[in-house]
Amino acid sequence: MDYIEILGLVAALFTTIANVPQAIKVIRTRSTKSLSAATYAMLFIGLALWTAYGIIRNDLPVLLGNVIAAALCGIILGMKLWCKYVSGEKEDAE
Amino acid sequence: MDYIEILGLVAALFTTIANVPQAIKVIRTRSTKSLSAATYAMLFIGLALWTAYGIIRNDLPVLLGNVIAAALCGIILGMKLWCKYVSGEKEDAE
Repeated sequence: MDYIEILGLVAALFTTIANVPQAIKVIRTRSTKSLSAATYAMLFIGLALWTAYGIIRNDLPVLLGNVIAAALCGIILGMKLWCKYVSGEKEDAE
Repeated sequence: MDYIEILGLVAALFTTIANVPQAIKVIRTRSTKSLSAATYAMLFIGLALWTAYGIIRNDLPVLLGNVIAAALCGIILGMKLWCKYVSGEKEDAE
């Protein structure tokens, strides 16, 4: 493993683990008022496409980072949609 | 440009543009209650590292996507820190 791959893995580690506190926060508080549903929907699609890109290019950091991030993002998106459409949470007023 | 690079650019487009509605939302509502500061701090560092990775590997989709995402993420992080430490916004209760 060369230093470029290590750099990529560290980058992947950050952008992947980054989603953990947000996922924990929405699960604990059951509040997603300030979160944008459009953002998490697009992130989820984008991360799934990045995963495919990582597989095709045989790029380990891109693959690993994005598959986990997509899963975490899916949890956050699920909570957002649940809060918005099932439990009837109000969005933040403008 | 081959189809793999197009896939990467589409993926980059999604994960980059994804941050736009979230950035607009926090700017409009001045509310970041449900956002995790730790998440945006780590995302910002991670996206900066991905940018470096894209430069070194000469990977256009990785570079382009992450440099713009890092900028948008920086705006959201700035708003979160401003709301939390300057305007004294309360976090969502658990």
